[in-house]
Amino acid sequence: MSTAVGKLVVSRDMFITLEGVEGSGKSTQAELLKEFLQKQGLKVTLTREPGWGALGRLIRRLLLEEKELELHPLAELYLFCADRTQHVRDFVLPKLKEGGIVICDRFTDSTIAYQGYGRRLELDLVERVAREAALGLKPKLTILLNIPVKVGLSRLEKREGKTKMDEEPLEFHERVRQGYIFIAQKEPKRVKVVNATRDIYEIQQEIRNIVLSHISK
Amino acid sequence: MSTAVGKLVVSRDMFITLEGVEGSGKSTQAELLKEFLQKQGLKVTLTREPGWGALGRLIRRLLLEEKELELHPLAELYLFCADRTQHVRDFVLPKLKEGGIVICDRFTDSTIAYQGYGRRLELDLVERVAREAALGLKPKLTILLNIPVKVGLSRLEKREGKTKMDEEPLEFHERVRQGYIFIAQKEPKRVKVVNATRDIYEIQQEIRNIVLSHISK
Repeated sequence: MSTAVGKLVVSRDMFITLEGVEGSGKSTQAELLKEFLQKQGLKVTLTREPGWGALGRLIRRLLLEEKELELHPLAELYLFCADRTQHVRDFVLPKLKEGGIVICDRFTDSTIAYQGYGRRLELDLVERVAREAALGLKPKLTILLNIPVKVGLSRLEKREGKTKMDEEPLEFHERVRQGYIFIAQKEPKRVKVVNATRDIYEIQQEIRNIVLSHISK
Repeated sequence: MSTAVGKLVVSRDMFITLEGVEGSGKSTQAELLKEFLQKQGLKVTLTREPGWGALGRLIRRLLLEEKELELHPLAELYLFCADRTQHVRDFVLPKLKEGGIVICDRFTDSTIAYQGYGRRLELDLVERVAREAALGLKPKLTILLNIPVKVGLSRLEKREGKTKMDEEPLEFHERVRQGYIFIAQKEPKRVKVVNATRDIYEIQQEIRNIVLSHISK
């Protein structure tokens, strides 16, 4: 089913994700996109992973903030995926069922890129575990903010509260970026690569165009 | 490699697990077994799942105590397995490498029985996720304390601090018990079924005999 809003037609399962390495500007772009779509009269929910709900907040702290806790990459994978299952069942799916758009800052592709390519866990296992965790939900559209790892990380220098991920070595982030590129090459219809080295508003303009061409019919 | 202790020869990878439904007496039997083996001059470590270390304690609370948190069975599976990975890497494997015996109250078979048969998650997924989580470690010997579900649960009535699992409906526990039986039928050499309706010391005697016949050579 779909709802007509002005000239835009929003499918009930309009699930958009933003992906990219640290410092690629996902959160900023997601926020701007949300404001833009709301101005078009659309119902928009912005959310992120990891960290939804009571379990999510706890897992987010374990995964990203507790620097003393040395997680095995497999335990890390399972924790991210436990968080996703709860988030999808209790928040994302209900929001999609209400109609409107859900924008999610990181989703399954993050797991494949970070735990599969970054941590080098067996890709086939990571894909299986991550796919199951999403309870069948797949983004209709994924914006991949592509940026050289060094540029992304240098942006974080100015930021407070760096996470455990931010502090991984450069090679780790390079593998993650490469992982994202592989995913985009495998699924070019779903994953749109956007050059994220440019000015914030230039990037946002391109994202808006992509999103509009996906939801206007 | 192995170490001779009196007449007993303990393999360096002597990993014994105890399994069974709620109220089957695992913890009591594990404790008695540990004392007995220590009296034979053996180095014995007793541990349990879930709940080892900082992550484990947190996960144990989420899984068993936080009654408001409605976990999706898949999130539950992933949390149990994250706990296992950390426990195996940081505690069980180092203890086994030091030599001696490690007795673990619940391990991979619990995951198959509870999340696979009890929660009815896809068995093939549960087995894969649980196998990976154990980092290649498999018990040399598993004692399955077999008891009718109602008898086990009635024992818990007297106990304080019932967990979320204890409060599942009878059919759930019946499926778990049946799951354990299937596992024992598939691996009769590893899994020894012990009738746990008898007197504590009678059960313990049978367990001691089984364990001794496995470690004496």
